[in-house]
Amino acid sequence: MDQLNPPTRLLMGPGPINADPRVTRAMSSALVGQFDPWMTATMNETMDLYRTVFGTKNWATFVVDGTSRAAIEAALVSIVEPGQKVLIAVMGRFGLLLKEIAERVGAEVVTIERPWGTVFTDAEIEEAIRAHQPAVFATVQGDTATTMNQPLAGIGAICRKHGVLSYVDATASIVGNTLLTDEWDLDVVSCGLQKCLGGPSGSAPITISERAREVIEARAHVEAGLSDGTAGQGVRIASNYFDLGMLMDYWGPTRLNHHTESATMLYGARECARLVAEEGVAQAVARHALHGAAMAAGLKGLGLELFGDQAHRMNNVIGVKIPEGLPGDELRAALLEDFGIEIGTSFGPLAGVVWRVGVMGYNARRDAVLATLAGLEAELRRFGVRVPAGGGVDAALDHYRDNAR
Amino acid sequence: MDQLNPPTRLLMGPGPINADPRVTRAMSSALVGQFDPWMTATMNETMDLYRTVFGTKNWATFVVDGTSRAAIEAALVSIVEPGQKVLIAVMGRFGLLLKEIAERVGAEVVTIERPWGTVFTDAEIEEAIRAHQPAVFATVQGDTATTMNQPLAGIGAICRKHGVLSYVDATASIVGNTLLTDEWDLDVVSCGLQKCLGGPSGSAPITISERAREVIEARAHVEAGLSDGTAGQGVRIASNYFDLGMLMDYWGPTRLNHHTESATMLYGARECARLVAEEGVAQAVARHALHGAAMAAGLKGLGLELFGDQAHRMNNVIGVKIPEGLPGDELRAALLEDFGIEIGTSFGPLAGVVWRVGVMGYNARRDAVLATLAGLEAELRRFGVRVPAGGGVDAALDHYRDNAR
Repeated sequence: MDQLNPPTRLLMGPGPINADPRVTRAMSSALVGQFDPWMTATMNETMDLYRTVFGTKNWATFVVDGTSRAAIEAALVSIVEPGQKVLIAVMGRFGLLLKEIAERVGAEVVTIERPWGTVFTDAEIEEAIRAHQPAVFATVQGDTATTMNQPLAGIGAICRKHGVLSYVDATASIVGNTLLTDEWDLDVVSCGLQKCLGGPSGSAPITISERAREVIEARAHVEAGLSDGTAGQGVRIASNYFDLGMLMDYWGPTRLNHHTESATMLYGARECARLVAEEGVAQAVARHALHGAAMAAGLKGLGLELFGDQAHRMNNVIGVKIPEGLPGDELRAALLEDFGIEIGTSFGPLAGVVWRVGVMGYNARRDAVLATLAGLEAELRRFGVRVPAGGGVDAALDHYRDNAR
Repeated sequence: MDQLNPPTRLLMGPGPINADPRVTRAMSSALVGQFDPWMTATMNETMDLYRTVFGTKNWATFVVDGTSRAAIEAALVSIVEPGQKVLIAVMGRFGLLLKEIAERVGAEVVTIERPWGTVFTDAEIEEAIRAHQPAVFATVQGDTATTMNQPLAGIGAICRKHGVLSYVDATASIVGNTLLTDEWDLDVVSCGLQKCLGGPSGSAPITISERAREVIEARAHVEAGLSDGTAGQGVRIASNYFDLGMLMDYWGPTRLNHHTESATMLYGARECARLVAEEGVAQAVARHALHGAAMAAGLKGLGLELFGDQAHRMNNVIGVKIPEGLPGDELRAALLEDFGIEIGTSFGPLAGVVWRVGVMGYNARRDAVLATLAGLEAELRRFGVRVPAGGGVDAALDHYRDNAR
């Protein structure tokens, strides 16, 4: 079998995206043992960098070795005891994923739902919390399936008022949209690298408030073979790999052996966060807003109709309706084949109905936006859609001109 | 914060080890979208390569995105229903880990135990199966905590005779020791990259027999948001991330969206297996036997006493008793500081009692063995141990001379 020879792709779908070359380069660094002083120092640095990314002072800020949903499951299995009630705000597929994971970990799940393409008001969420009195409230910030960005500024305070822990999946939204873990009083927030953080999938940063940490530590059970025979306390977490208490012992000063940290993914996660820290979180969000809006303007300039409540769209993913009768997947395949550019479709009720165009991380760049619009214009025309010549690129360039920073 | 500047280390502990440079290089390949035809072809190639590594024709052979214990948990949560009986053969820490994970997924766990440093006979295992009639029998092949290599050639047949599914954790042993999944009739076997496969931690190859696959598929539940509303069947697997049924749907022809495959780790996993396929599995095992035996000879040549039943030692990890009164961790720290060479200690009853020296993957090389012995000799002497001058290196070189291939 031959060595890897991947084709050159410009990944402008809902993620994964092209990794920043600096991240790939960091990931090629030499391996070091997991309890080497250099390695534990590097783990500590990574924790510190992610405090910046999450906007938090939480000590318990680290990465889970797995893709974004690994951290979702780790959060839910660790803070929810079987039989406890979890309220989930569902506005798309990834809200349904939270529901699915919460059910699997044995929660009594209640949901509130909004039509795909809309978001919840604080009042709707508070009313549901009042009605259901859950132990945990969970939501996604940005649901990539619909491109919506759930406002969260008021949610933490509502949860605290009602004695509810909050969990937020910020995989698709983080760094592309404002997320202030501490200021918004959120308890557990997790994400992945493969969207606006500009890395590959496979490492899932998470942050845990002191309040949530107490809940998790009340269920501490040290692994047999490591412990001094203490039996543990509380209801044992139904996963070893995702036991956030054990992960905190591994990342904390006791350095209690758990998994073998994936050094290569850690290197990547660290470099992703270092890039954000260098740029500044607010500046990174502004960059995503600029290029996302340029892409949205360009798509409208091609005569396409955007999907969903644009006032609450994530900066970094744009949903666009596939013109009536157009074979959307065939056009996507042609765009990939001819231009090497990938865009996405969506799931469930939106599969084949919308395309999703991502403008994320390393690809939140002018040239990437323009290349995508130019390629899409050509393919639309070849598929028989009447498109204004240069309409996408022009509208995007106008947006850049009018919003020069 | 500065860019990564890892120190140069020769990792001769029980893993992780230095990645083969070809693996690191493959991992720096450009990212491609997860459903890109090139990517799905690469996934299929990776499945095929791991069939070679595992010695199997099982279609369901792929990687779990996580460290080795991610695949252990995926196996146990997927093939064991809560309340079912699991028999675990425990001969060290990693047998205890299987017990711990099986308990957490709700199994009724019974164990048989052997003193650390010994292995089970087939008769002992069959007797326990007869007595307990479990649904699943689970064991590690190589327990790195003790360096022992459990003979498995007869186990699959015993399990089939009694209608028991078998699970084997081959993380520490695979490629360093013979493992014939199909010939030995094993049902589920999993491992990791960071030992004899010569890669970094973070991807966990697994293979699943048709028999086990039927058990898993009888519990199929498609994720909400993707399904057409079918409710699923059987007892739902208590994890989304580790649901091997969903992973098979993702790796199979339906390509049903699940997690976002970690392309970088996949690239690494593929190259690890490609290296083994090029060398030949039997040749790779022979290489580990050669260099492991040279290391063992060298350690004895330094006047040290080996730990455990040497007739059943893994080829690739050697346990050696720390001389009475010697501060073992201090010497290890000095070896790391002075020579940049890492060796390990062990866990539980063996912590501070034995060192573990690994000879694995890319580091199963003559120069790595000799450098380790030379460094260890120097440190032993500086710590006041009377050591024959050159006794380690000489014994190893003699072994190479007498076993020239």
